[in-house]
Parts: sequence; structure tokens; C-alpha cells
Amino acid sequence: MTEAAKRFVTALPDRETDFSGWYTEVILRAELADYAPVRGCMVIRPYGFALWENMQARLDRRFKDTGHVNAYFPLFIPESFLKKEAEHVEGFAPQVAWVTQGGDEPLGERLAVRPTSEAIIGAMYAKWVQSYRDLPVLINQWCNVVRWEKRTTLFLRTTEFLWQEGHTAHATEEEAEAEALRILGIYKDFVENDLAIPVVAGRKTESEKFAGALRTYSIEAMMADRRALQAATSHNLGQHFARAFNITFLDRDGQRKYVWQTSWGASTRLVGAIIMVHGDADGLILPPKVAPYQAVIVPIWRSEAEQERVTAVVREAEARLKAQEVRVISDLRDEYTPGWKFSEWDLRGVPVRVEIGPRDVENRQAVLVRRDTRERRTVPFENLAEKVKALLAEVQQALFRRALDFQRANSYNIDRLEDFEAVFAGQRGFVYAHWCGSAACEAAIKDQTGATIRVIPFDQPEGAAAPGQCIWCGRPSERRVLFARAY
Amino acid sequence: MTEAAKRFVTALPDRETDFSGWYTEVILRAELADYAPVRGCMVIRPYGFALWENMQARLDRRFKDTGHVNAYFPLFIPESFLKKEAEHVEGFAPQVAWVTQGGDEPLGERLAVRPTSEAIIGAMYAKWVQSYRDLPVLINQWCNVVRWEKRTTLFLRTTEFLWQEGHTAHATEEEAEAEALRILGIYKDFVENDLAIPVVAGRKTESEKFAGALRTYSIEAMMADRRALQAATSHNLGQHFARAFNITFLDRDGQRKYVWQTSWGASTRLVGAIIMVHGDADGLILPPKVAPYQAVIVPIWRSEAEQERVTAVVREAEARLKAQEVRVISDLRDEYTPGWKFSEWDLRGVPVRVEIGPRDVENRQAVLVRRDTRERRTVPFENLAEKVKALLAEVQQALFRRALDFQRANSYNIDRLEDFEAVFAGQRGFVYAHWCGSAACEAAIKDQTGATIRVIPFDQPEGAAAPGQCIWCGRPSERRVLFARAY
Repeated sequence: MTEAAKRFVTALPDRETDFSGWYTEVILRAELADYAPVRGCMVIRPYGFALWENMQARLDRRFKDTGHVNAYFPLFIPESFLKKEAEHVEGFAPQVAWVTQGGDEPLGERLAVRPTSEAIIGAMYAKWVQSYRDLPVLINQWCNVVRWEKRTTLFLRTTEFLWQEGHTAHATEEEAEAEALRILGIYKDFVENDLAIPVVAGRKTESEKFAGALRTYSIEAMMADRRALQAATSHNLGQHFARAFNITFLDRDGQRKYVWQTSWGASTRLVGAIIMVHGDADGLILPPKVAPYQAVIVPIWRSEAEQERVTAVVREAEARLKAQEVRVISDLRDEYTPGWKFSEWDLRGVPVRVEIGPRDVENRQAVLVRRDTRERRTVPFENLAEKVKALLAEVQQALFRRALDFQRANSYNIDRLEDFEAVFAGQRGFVYAHWCGSAACEAAIKDQTGATIRVIPFDQPEGAAAPGQCIWCGRPSERRVLFARAY
Repeated sequence: MTEAAKRFVTALPDRETDFSGWYTEVILRAELADYAPVRGCMVIRPYGFALWENMQARLDRRFKDTGHVNAYFPLFIPESFLKKEAEHVEGFAPQVAWVTQGGDEPLGERLAVRPTSEAIIGAMYAKWVQSYRDLPVLINQWCNVVRWEKRTTLFLRTTEFLWQEGHTAHATEEEAEAEALRILGIYKDFVENDLAIPVVAGRKTESEKFAGALRTYSIEAMMADRRALQAATSHNLGQHFARAFNITFLDRDGQRKYVWQTSWGASTRLVGAIIMVHGDADGLILPPKVAPYQAVIVPIWRSEAEQERVTAVVREAEARLKAQEVRVISDLRDEYTPGWKFSEWDLRGVPVRVEIGPRDVENRQAVLVRRDTRERRTVPFENLAEKVKALLAEVQQALFRRALDFQRANSYNIDRLEDFEAVFAGQRGFVYAHWCGSAACEAAIKDQTGATIRVIPFDQPEGAAAPGQCIWCGRPSERRVLFARAY
């Protein structure tokens, strides 16, 4: 029995009662990723990587369309560089993997394997930026980063992960702020429209912001277990790194000034979000826009004669779909039954299945089956490609709609502490509650309930925009903030 | 004065007398890359990275078209894994950067920052491959690798570099051998057709092969200083790693067998080859197929009225070129003269310049200037895009032709040791000479002349296919091998 076959012998863990078991098993069985024999590291397998490549391409296109360019900075950061920004090193030092030996020679100074690249990039910008004419600098890089984590989960938190990190420098504070918000908008657009995951955008509190930032913005998504996942962050760094690394420019007015910077990132963690938001008891459901295969053609035959006739039509269908740029695969393996194939491709989350059997060949038709709703429809073969494309668009919309309905159904405006505690002692959810702004109340609430302030949302929840009293201490509060248990 | 401006104040080092000085200065001034403040590391700047992205896309397409898929394996390799294949660890250990500390905790086992990934991938394949149905495995990854180098040169040899590494597993020796050669063919096609660099393909000698391989194949290119650069390698690994990592499968005949493997790589070093093969006294000349900008439009005006009229036409020209998928940039900066812009874009190697001045606007025409030959031609505005595209194809061809002529003019069939020595004491070149096959002669020749056997070429040089005598010891030799000084 092959590895693939073995995985189907036992059922998936129950998604309702063992969400994290279900999550891990889906990843392993669908071959998105595997554990590596290195502490906390994973291998992204070809199916998972194809998904990530599609995500990368769509995000990268958005960055380039808004004037950003890609570059590549070194993996290693000398310890002294990391130390230049005090909050930054404090935040990241406990998580750094250190290189202390190169070949046979012990190093004079330890090198950090980058946990993020503000420090090394700051040093380069200090060299490159001299005049206002050199600004803005709008650079992004796709790379691996390492954070020494105590507890890890595939895609969500691993010692090494892949991400993009943008690093920009601007002449004015306003420009930097606008950039940080523009990028947050790009992330929101990407996650909502391409990954079909609704998010809440807002600002992080002081205690939750990036180590070294002036302000951190983020988008937060609700997973199927009603916990929040930080899907992407965008930081206005102010002049913190500019001062630490002496990044200055001669402005139009003849004055030498520090630049204003931003940094922003999204990672392979988003793959985890896709799994947790859209999956069901049978496995993955991938949003069509990023699915490695948008459609799978499964032939049905009983005899060799049928196999021959059906296979010819399958190949024709595949060609028609490819001609219309549908990412399609035909599963012509003859050692597996159609039912087996249905289960396997369901597990792997292919959004649309195309079934073609002898009767379909005769009637010049095909049966389309949606992964998300199981709805079947028979379509004429002649406009197969258009029908599949229309169905893919429908599925994309439906996934978003379903996730949004779920998020709304599990979001609450809460004004009494006992109701607040009840939510987090129970099913969890997004709780919009008043908060006075003090770090002490924030910490006390976390201690008591496990819930943290995910963001101070840009938009107040419907019908709850009025001022009120802090849910913990009762002092006045201007606005509600979003509380949730976080991944 | 901006950084960019400063670079033009002094002339480039002379390419004939100071090739390495010229090489480094071109990279820095054209902003392909910069030195990083980490020993032996570089920063690939946006212009250099855009070139690499184009190269990646074209190579990746070829891999995918031949059934390969991408994945991602961990950066860290436990020391014990690296040690499993004896030759492999011996070859790479002296160059490994070691992680010995994670956060506050000293590691029980050192982790190698991957110098190449055979070991970690071998461990995964042992887990994934069970049956002949799991074969072949055709996986590639694009990633960073680290080799602790004593002396470094931008792009050619840096502590960290970017590359792709393919790792395949097959049921039979024949399949693995065919794969290794298929990939070498892909590399040759890519380097010759896309990078316009002619190469000599062949097999490495025992002393030059990859640490752990059964056989190594490579393609070798001649740089403008008549030294050889190994442009890409493809290894038949035999069952070396399969035995070390116990990668076995149950074959159709019911027997458990070790798989046969290949690995193959090409890196950012190829950017160095492009610079060294095609550049001239004024800077880079980039092959159109991979150039970040294939054309630059430089407007010429004297008055504000002219500026307005010319700018409108420049924008129209840009739109026409973009509509035909020409990668084009318009240089509308008004703080620089046209002459300054010509020099800057020449330095940056843009293959075609489009000049548009007031007279051109009047006559509905544009002037095209080839970067490689400086040839100018006036073309009607109406078919600007077709003319530019045709010219780009011409330049692509011409660059290859010129490089091939140069390689041929500097290649020799040599039978006498004194002639051999004279070549390497002088201008250098590719020398096809007879060799008996002994490692002792190979080493003695290297000691004496600095020349190494780059490959045992698949094709013997013209008119020299007959057997002969080893150029060092005089013993019989079946065929000539390619000697050169190597980068």
C-alpha cells in the first residue's frame, strides 16, 4: 500500500471536538506539509507550495502595481546591528537562532539568523539614501525567517517560515503613515478577495505592537474554532530605526533629516488560515483563485471499451479547460475507483469536480460537483469551460459569504464583564467591548479570560458606535475594541 | 549630489587591464548589488533582483513543463544528517555555518545552515517513498544556501547565495541518468537561448565532481577574460544518498530496492556570467529576454513647450510598447540631460534606447539605438512596437553570436605541453587537449599551469576527434578534454 493509500484507511479526527487534531491531519494527508526532522521546522510539500506560489504571485502583483520592487538582503544579521534599536532587540533576542561558527573558525561576533530584517535593511538604507531624490524607497523581499519557538504548529507557528517583508523609507511622516495604511488595504483586499477570508482591520494596542514600531496595524480573521488569527501586519516605524541606523537625507529645504519608515509582512501562516476557515469534515476546501488545481476531472468506466471512449473525452475536456486557463488535472489512474478519487480530491480541497462517464460521453455532457456544497449539475460539453469558470467564481463568492456569515454570527457587542467571561469560557468569538486604554486593564482581562485586544478596529461594529465604560474598570471609553482568543 | 550621480563622476576601471575592478564597479554603479555589512554577503538590489526574477521565471517554466514541482525544505540540517554520506560531509563541512544556540538555549546538536539540501531531502524521501507508484519524485526548490567562503566576489562566490536545487528519485539507474542529462539540456537551452551565453557541456572528472555524486555533468561558459565559469551542474547521485538515508521502495517485482537519485542546481552566479560575457567599456549589456527593462525611452527637449509635446508622445510610445508586452521605462526626469540619461541606461545595459525629440514628434518617428552596436535607426512611429520587438530579437541573437565567436576564437586544440603552458601564461582560453584519465596528471597540470579540466566534453572540438597522447605524461588518450582557468 502506498503512503497515499494508507492515509485513507482511518477517518480524519472530528473537526468539532478535536479541531487541532483535524487541522494537523488534514495538512499531512492532503500533503500540504510534513514535519521535518529539525525541531519546530516543517517541509512545505509540492501541493502546499503550489498553493503558496499562487498566493505569492497575486500578492506580488499588487505590490508591484503600487510601485514596489523586490530585492534580497542577507540571512545573517550581526548581533551588534540587532542591538541598535533597543525595543527591537528586546522583542526578538529570545527567539534568535545564533550562528557562532563558520567552517572551522569560531566567529568573533555572533550572527543572528534573521527573525525579521529591519536591522540589516536599516544599515543599507543609511548608505543608499542621501537626498530627497532617493525617496521614497519601496522595497519588498520574499524570504525565509527563523524564530526559535517553544511550541510549534504546522504553518501557524514554525521555527522557520516563509514570508514577504516590505521595508519603505519616506521623506515625511504623513507619507509613511499613508504607506502603512495603503499596504494594510492591499492585505485586506488580498485576503478577502483571493483567500475568501473576511477580516477586521485596525490598530494594535501598545502592548501588542511590533518591537520597534511607532504603530502597528493588522487584519484579524476568525478561524472555525472562533479564535482570531493575525493574518498580516503593517507597521509605521516612525523614525525609530532611522535614528538607530542614522538613515538621513538632504531635503529640498537644505536640511538633513531622518527618514520615516514602514515595514509590513504576510507569511505562510495564511495557508493555515485557509485550512481553518474553509475546511470541513472531509478535508480542505481551497478558494478557486489560489487553488493549485481549480478542477479535477474524474472519469468513470466499467469496461476497457468504456475506458477508452471516456479517456478520449476527458482529454478533450482537459484541453478545453486549459485553453480557458483553468488549472485542471485529470485523474486517469486505473488502480483507484472513482469513489476513492472523489474522497482524495475532496480531502485536497479542489473546488470543482468534473465527472465524465459513458452516458455523459453519449449525451455530450459532464457533471460538475461543487466541493463546498456538494451540489451537482449536468452541463452541456460544448460550453464546459464557461460553466466551470462561472462555477469557480460562484464558489469563490460563496466561501467568502459563508465565512463572513460565520464571523458575524459569532461576533458580539458586550457591555457586562460576566457576559464577556461567558463567551471566552464557552465557544469563544469576536467580542467588541469598551476599554479605557490602560495596559493594566488589558493585562487583567487577558489573565482572567485569555482574550487579548486583537485590534482597535477602524470601523465600530454596527449599532455600537457610542462611547461607554471600560468592561474591566468602568472608566470612560471612546470606542469599542476587538477582543478574542488568538492563535 | 545623489548617490546615483556620484557614481558617474569617475570613469569605470578599464575592462581590458582591470577586468575584476571593472566587474565590481559595474555591479555597484548599475545597482545590481551591494556589499552587505556581513562577511562575504551581498545585497541583491532591486535592479539585480528584477533580472534574477526574470531568469527564475524562465527556468522555472522549463522545469514545470518537464513535470517538476516546487517545494520547500528546512534551512537547518542536523549535523548527524550531514554526516551520513561520507564524501558529502567531507566536501561540505569546511564550508558550513553552524547554529549552536537557539534563543537562550545551547543546542544539543549543532545545526548546519544548508550548504545544499541532499541530506535533509534524503531524510524526507525515505519517509515519502514506499512503492514504485511513488516514483519518480521530481522536486525542485528555490532558496538561499550558505557556504563559508574565504574569498568572495559579488555574485560569483558569496557566503550566502540564491539558487534552485532539484532533487529527484527514480526506480532505475537509466531513468536517473536520463534525468540528469535532461536537466543539463534544460540548463544549456536556458543559458544559450535566454542568457545568450554559449556553453560547453560535458562530464566532470572524479576530482571535480560533486561531493557524494556518482557522476557530475556541467555546462561551462567562457567569460570575457577567457576564464571558464561553471554555469550549472547536474548530478547523477547513484544510490549514494539512498543507501545513506535508506530510501527504498517496493518494486513491481515485489523486491525492496534503493532509489536512484539526481540533484542539480543553478544560482545567482549566472548573473555574474551575464555581466562578464556581454558587458563592455560603458557597462552592462543585458540580453533582452531577461533584461528588467528591454527598452528605455529618453525624451529630448530644449524648451518647456517642447517638453510638453515630447512628453505626450513619450507616454504614447510607452503605452504602445507595453501593449505589445515590451518591458519599457520612460526617463522623464528633468534634472538630468539626455546625454546623462544615455550614459546611465548604457551603464545599466538596457538593450534598446528609444529617443524622441521635437523633430521626431513632428515627423511621427522615433530613433532606436542598440546598446550592443550603438547602431541608430529611425523608424516610423506607427510601427514602433514591432520595430522594437524585432530589434530586441536581433540583439538577443547578436549577443549570442558575438559570445560564440569570441569563445571559438579563444579555443584551441593543443597537443604540445609548451603550447599549453603558453596559453595559460598568456591570455588564457579554452584548451582541448588529450588526457590519459589519471588524477595525478590532472593535479600536476593544475599545479603547473593553474588550468583544470572543466569537462570531458560530450562533443569533441571540430577536426580533433581522433585519439592521441596525454599532454602531460604521453600515455594514450581516447579523447580531448576541456582545460581552462576557472572562476
